[in-house]
Amino acid sequence: MEIKFKPIGMVHSPFKKSEDIALRKYADPQGFDQILGDLEIFKEYEAGLEDTEGFSHLIVIFAFHKSGGCELRTKPFLDDEPRGVFSTRSPRRPNPLGLTVVRVLERDGNILKVSGIDMLDRTPILDIKPYTSRDQKSPIRLGWLENKMKSVSRS
Amino acid sequence: MEIKFKPIGMVHSPFKKSEDIALRKYADPQGFDQILGDLEIFKEYEAGLEDTEGFSHLIVIFAFHKSGGCELRTKPFLDDEPRGVFSTRSPRRPNPLGLTVVRVLERDGNILKVSGIDMLDRTPILDIKPYTSRDQKSPIRLGWLENKMKSVSRS
Repeated sequence: MEIKFKPIGMVHSPFKKSEDIALRKYADPQGFDQILGDLEIFKEYEAGLEDTEGFSHLIVIFAFHKSGGCELRTKPFLDDEPRGVFSTRSPRRPNPLGLTVVRVLERDGNILKVSGIDMLDRTPILDIKPYTSRDQKSPIRLGWLENKMKSVSRS
Repeated sequence: MEIKFKPIGMVHSPFKKSEDIALRKYADPQGFDQILGDLEIFKEYEAGLEDTEGFSHLIVIFAFHKSGGCELRTKPFLDDEPRGVFSTRSPRRPNPLGLTVVRVLERDGNILKVSGIDMLDRTPILDIKPYTSRDQKSPIRLGWLENKMKSVSRS
């Protein structure tokens, strides 16, 4: 059984290749807050963007289009031990789906100007959803990431 | 261009059909907190689940397998006005992808026992990710949902 999805748009980002992304920024909850970019939604879906600009944050689901292969156990850059891939945000996963919560700055027709971009330029966008109170979880426990990442809930 | 994904597992939920889900619960950030269920990850992916039980919360990306079609403007049950679908969590979207943050209770091999289930029984799971400090956003603005949903950040 396969499920087919089609890109609804594309990320415009200052990160042209993966080496441009400073991985250490992932350890800081605010690490990418200053990175600006555009989410270009193809014209045929523009009507679906209405009302998104009322939300402070949106969830972007995208395809890791440059990810090669999959490792079920992977050594995260923040740790020395191999970890189960579903306990990491590694791009090398069974389904190369990525997720980032961005801040909405402005909408100009089919373009959302956002901050918090950690995706590569030309990343295919699959879905956009409003970030709501149901997505706010606190306090949280971070497993192997504990003490490697600053937790907002304890700052 | 199409991107193909395959289910990595299946949700076991008390909701056998969509009418079983009390929609009003979505207005309450804790509305589904008491709903228990299992995330069954297929045996071939079990190794990827290692270390997930160390996290208090996991993000589940799934397919709305019972969703028929797509509406770019849709009237959410919490509002009387049609809204752009990307400002809603409606299942009738260009790519029928769903997202829920669940609480991890326990892992038993390839089965994650969780609470916070709002998916239908037998929903295909596409990915599981750790919920981290980068996913905690506060304060947030809720657009058309403002005053229709209780906000954790202001409670």
